[in-house]
Parts: sequence; C-alpha cells; structure tokens
Amino acid sequence: MNQKINIGLFGYGVVGESLHHVLKHSKTVDAGVRKICVKQKDKKRSLEQNEFTFNKDDIINDQNINLVVELIDDADEAYDIVKRCLQNKKSVVSGNKKMLAHHLDELIDLQEKTDTALLYDASACGSIPIIRNIEEYYDNDLLKSVTGILNGSSNYILSKIFNEGLDYDTALKQAQELGFAESNPGLDVDGFDSLYKLIIIATHALGTFVKPNEVLNYGISNIKEYDIQFAREKNFKIKLVAQLIKLNDESFTMFVIPRLVRPDKYIYNVEDEYNGVVIQGEFYDKQFMFGKGAGGYPTGSAVLSDITARSHNYKYEYKKQKYFKKLEYRTDHEIEIYLRYNSMVDFSYFEFETILEKYSGIGNSYIIGKIKLANLLKLKAVLTKLDVFLAYIRN
Amino acid sequence: MNQKINIGLFGYGVVGESLHHVLKHSKTVDAGVRKICVKQKDKKRSLEQNEFTFNKDDIINDQNINLVVELIDDADEAYDIVKRCLQNKKSVVSGNKKMLAHHLDELIDLQEKTDTALLYDASACGSIPIIRNIEEYYDNDLLKSVTGILNGSSNYILSKIFNEGLDYDTALKQAQELGFAESNPGLDVDGFDSLYKLIIIATHALGTFVKPNEVLNYGISNIKEYDIQFAREKNFKIKLVAQLIKLNDESFTMFVIPRLVRPDKYIYNVEDEYNGVVIQGEFYDKQFMFGKGAGGYPTGSAVLSDITARSHNYKYEYKKQKYFKKLEYRTDHEIEIYLRYNSMVDFSYFEFETILEKYSGIGNSYIIGKIKLANLLKLKAVLTKLDVFLAYIRN
Repeated sequence: MNQKINIGLFGYGVVGESLHHVLKHSKTVDAGVRKICVKQKDKKRSLEQNEFTFNKDDIINDQNINLVVELIDDADEAYDIVKRCLQNKKSVVSGNKKMLAHHLDELIDLQEKTDTALLYDASACGSIPIIRNIEEYYDNDLLKSVTGILNGSSNYILSKIFNEGLDYDTALKQAQELGFAESNPGLDVDGFDSLYKLIIIATHALGTFVKPNEVLNYGISNIKEYDIQFAREKNFKIKLVAQLIKLNDESFTMFVIPRLVRPDKYIYNVEDEYNGVVIQGEFYDKQFMFGKGAGGYPTGSAVLSDITARSHNYKYEYKKQKYFKKLEYRTDHEIEIYLRYNSMVDFSYFEFETILEKYSGIGNSYIIGKIKLANLLKLKAVLTKLDVFLAYIRN
Repeated sequence: MNQKINIGLFGYGVVGESLHHVLKHSKTVDAGVRKICVKQKDKKRSLEQNEFTFNKDDIINDQNINLVVELIDDADEAYDIVKRCLQNKKSVVSGNKKMLAHHLDELIDLQEKTDTALLYDASACGSIPIIRNIEEYYDNDLLKSVTGILNGSSNYILSKIFNEGLDYDTALKQAQELGFAESNPGLDVDGFDSLYKLIIIATHALGTFVKPNEVLNYGISNIKEYDIQFAREKNFKIKLVAQLIKLNDESFTMFVIPRLVRPDKYIYNVEDEYNGVVIQGEFYDKQFMFGKGAGGYPTGSAVLSDITARSHNYKYEYKKQKYFKKLEYRTDHEIEIYLRYNSMVDFSYFEFETILEKYSGIGNSYIIGKIKLANLLKLKAVLTKLDVFLAYIRN
C-alpha cells in the first residue's frame, strides 16, 4: 500500500522551510525532499547550496521524483509548473489558491487524462481540513450551505476594530507589521483571497466550478466608523464572510461580502487570524470547524497531510462532478443588505428590489433592503471606489 | 466505482427511522433499505408490517443485502450481529460505542480475515467526523493529543449549572425530560459514554486499543455547590473532558475526568448538548471541531456518511496500527488535580506525590496536587461512592 515519496519542492519560503524540517525529523512519514527549486540565486538559506536548483526542469524531468510540492507565490508560474508536472505523470501537492481558482476545471481534466493526482488541502483554510471533509465526508446531495471566515488577515483587522476599538487604518497597519497582511493588502481585505478559496470549496461541495470573475467579492476596505457604530448598536459584529448556498435541487449561489453577524452564530466568536467554517445540510446538523488559516506551520500541516495521503495513493474523486447532476450557478437571487452611503450620492444606482429601512442623516445615510446579487455583481469593479459600505444581513 | 447498496437495518428507533426517511428521499444516495429487523413484535411503527422481520437470520443470510446497518441499544446483541455479519462477508455500519469499545481489537482482526469493512463514525460524537479525520487526515505520527467534550448529556447539565445557576439534581432532571440523558444517567454522568468514545478515538489516533476497564472514567455525579463555587471564584468552568495524551515516542495515556477549564480554551465555549474536540499535533496547529454529538439526525448524518463511503468501497485502514510502532498505554504519569473532600475523611488515601495547595474548612476541604493516574485508576470502582470530587487542572 505505502509507497516511498521522493519530493521535488518548488519554493523555500516559510512553509517550504517548515515542511522540509518536519520531513527530516518525522520517523514515520516515508517521504523526503530530493531537490528544491528556487528563484533567487543569491539568497542566504538554511541548507547547503547543492540541495537547490534554479532550473524547473531539474525537478520536472527527474525520474526519481514521484511527487512535486509547489509552494510558490506566483500564480502564473505555479500554473505552468503544475500543468507540466501532471503532463509529465507526476502528482502534485499545491497550496496556490489563486492558481487553482483560475484553472481548477482544466486541472481536473488533466488529472483524469494523465492518471495523476493534484491535492491542495493547504489552499483553503490552512490547517482546517475543509476540502477533504467536503469531498469525503459530505459526499452526498444533502449539503445546503457552507459559510466561512476564510481570510485570517481581514478577520484580524475586524477583531481589532470590534474588540479593541482600533480604527481600520491602525488595525491594518498592525496586521501588516505582524505579517498577517500583505504589503498590498487588497488581496485580503477586498475579499480576493476568500473568493479563491470559495471557488475551490464550491467545486468540491457542489461539483460546479465557476470562474472567479463571475462571483462577487466585496471586502472591508470601505468600512467607516459609522458602520462600526451601526453594528455595535444592533449587537452585531462585522465579519468578512464567504457563503455558498444551495438554492434548490437545480441551482446554487455564492459570494464574498462583509456580514452583520449576530452573537448566536458560530462564526461570531472566530477572532483574530483564525478561520472558521460552518457546513450545513438537510439531514446533517451544523458542523463547525475552526483553526488557524494561514502561516507556515498551519499551512505546512495541510501540505503534510496531502503528502501522506499520496503515500496511500489518495486522490480527490470529484464525486459531486462525476456522479451528481450539475448544479447551475445563479445570481438572480435576492439578498438582504445594509448599504451605508454618502448622503450626496444617489442610492438608486443600486436598484433595490425592496427597501425595508431607510435612514437619512447629514453625511451618512443607510438603507436596509433586498437587492439582486446580479445587480451587485455588475458593480463589482467599482464598488470599492464609491463612498459606500455594504454588508449582508440575511437571505 | 459506485455500487448500489442494499441495506439490512437492525433497529428502528429515532436514528433508524430518520435514516430510513432520508434514504427514501435522497436522489443521489444510491442505497435503499431492504429489510428491518426489530425486537418488539407489537410496537406501532411508521412503516408497513411486511418491511420488518423479527429474525436476525433474515438479514444475515440474505444474499441480496450487501450492507448491514446496526442501530440497536443492546451492546451484547449488537456484538453478536456484527460478528456474524462480518463472518458472513457482509460489511457493517454501526453506532454502538459500548460494543466497539469492548470488542474493537477482535473486530479489526475479523475485518481483515473476512475482507469486509466495519465503519462507525456515528459511534463517536454523532455528526462530528472525528474518526474519519483522525484516520485519514491526521495519519502521521505528529499527533500529540486529543481533548474532547464527548458526552452531550453531562455537558448539558454542566451548562445549566454554570450558566443558569441550576443545581445538579434539577439540571439532571431537565436533561432527562428533554431526552438528553438516560433514565439511568450513570452511563453519561459517570463518564462511561465518554470513555467508550475515547477508546475508539485512541485506536485510530495512536493505533493502540486499550480495554475500557483499564482506563479511568470519573464523572460529575459527585459535584457539589462547593466545587461549583470554587470553579467560579477562579474563573473556571467545569467540563467533563476525555483526554488522550502522547507522552513521548513510546507511550501515551488517556482518561476521562472533569476538568477545570479556563476561558482561553476552545472547549470552554462548548455548551449544552454540543460536543467539541481539539486535535493537537507537533506541526499541526490546534484544530477544533464542533457539532451536535447525539440525537437522531446528527447521528443519522454520520451513519449516512458511512453508508455513502461504503458505496465507494471505503474502509478504515487502521494505518497507525499497521504502519507505526505500537505505543504503550501507561498510567504512571502524574496529573495535577483538585480534590474536594469531606473534612472528616483522611485524604492520604489518595497518595498525592506533591501537594501544591491545601485548604481546610468546616465540612469541605480541598487539595490541589499531583497524583499518579494509576493511583486514581486503582480507586476507579469506589471513587463515586466517596464524598469527594475530583477535577483535572493540568498535566
């Protein structure tokens, strides 16, 4: 059953280095790193020079390497590596959510054609085994929704705002100093990171791959003191939440948008850099999984589980795609939102179907109402440029 | 890959009936119940009489049944059914933790000999997929500990005591009225239910099966207002916690005992009838899984996942047992405990190794100190009969 795993590793950053360390010291994981491909030639590293190569082909063409672990940042480069490895009959473990969210459909086909495996539990929620559980355990048609805080950086910022009273800019700066947020924080705070993870989760949870540009991601970078005050007064916290909702037997919807969360929700208590995911089904009760979503060791642990899974020849079966009727992704669904806008702006721009509450003040006004997801999606590119803040309240 | 599952069902209680309902209405689960074996002939049931049999052999010998689902209460009867089914080349899904905790070693061997599968994710923590995750995802030697609230009834009682100020007897009565606790509540409140689940979890988490009578289970039935007051003053809650701890590369220990839990622990917020499990490893970060541990639908969902897993020919591989060095179960480990005792009692009976704090009062006194687990284990049979209360503080 077991096969010895000889790894070709791409990237030697925080995760790569932790992984290398653990593989060296673990007595029972029958896997070792044979070669490491890195980009920068002159960087000082913790290993001897002869363990590294700067030429991708040294790994892709090495007959003795039977598993490639891809842990680089550059999504385009990662895509090229993964594709060539699979074509070359090498299975791959990857943590690159952006690459996967853009190419998963094609990479599923390629696995099938080449009889290889691509595992990527590390790509969504670091150490929380969300993909594996959705693929294996929730493998029937009863799954109704997945609701998750999938991005640690933005959650850290919101925690600091709500629990310690920091303003957005100070909280963001703190997150950056601690290494939780990128120097260009848009990937995190504007919901792209959550979006990529949601796309991957949806492919396993419901069997349908949707391109990232077809899904709404709206983040927290427009949040103002007024919104925070509004949430506090109503006993909400604001969280950046990714949601996947089965609408009926034929269709589903998904989106990433800040949410006004009541204290009785599981995700209300997910604080700081943690991730939390709630899986709900028709017969299942709600399941809540919680852990650190990012960072070297949490991500490394997910990579490690994928590596040992390969030693048992595990591969994703994409059961929902193979055996179930394909669900259609729809955006004509109405969602209830809070919209805070500058009183000088004409809110009719947002085409609400129903207005439930309306408040006008000097400077800030708000509306609570129902709006078609498609109408928000049309505005996706400009939403963060307007002096407004949107948050989901309920379906 | 998929095979059509024809089920022979033993038991038609809450879980059995929910399961039957869902299988009838699910479009994609390719499984149907062919026959149901029940005990009581004259009970009114929701199905036609001809769907039932009262003779076990009608299922065990039916060539068209390829999966037996065993959902009865009686552990001895369940053992007989499971053994005979496996011997008869029929795979089984079971939720009977008591039966499994007493016979798992033998049933693992029998599966191997007969090339059958026995799945039982429903036996530990209802809808939380703890066994599957430990078996598949945490399948290397880095797992350090599993800490869990595994019994919903006793947790419900403790929640009512700590959050609503009920006394133990009133809380117990309420749990019984709501159907959370058995009419003979000892199984829950004295930690037997948690113990059985811990035995099953340990077999998958570390690969070593230990007989239930060799493991300490001490519950909450001796709790007094004094203990509750003590915990409150120190900002603890008391929870009934099952713990599995790897001591080093050679050995591990485990026990079920009430624990004084600080607010910064994940399990602190597990309330009412919920279960929560924390998995910790050397490289892994802490993972927390949370959900309803008992009841018809939560348990039914776990049974359902086992059934669909069988349609994909899934079986537990018992990887830790097969591929890893066997860890020895030890009890010579010291644990730090709080012991409240009646001031008339001679506490030297407990053979503390170290006493850290000692308080004497009229009526109640307490000691905090270190004691060998083996010393508590020796007293297992009499502990609940003494006017004392024990709680774990830390290692």
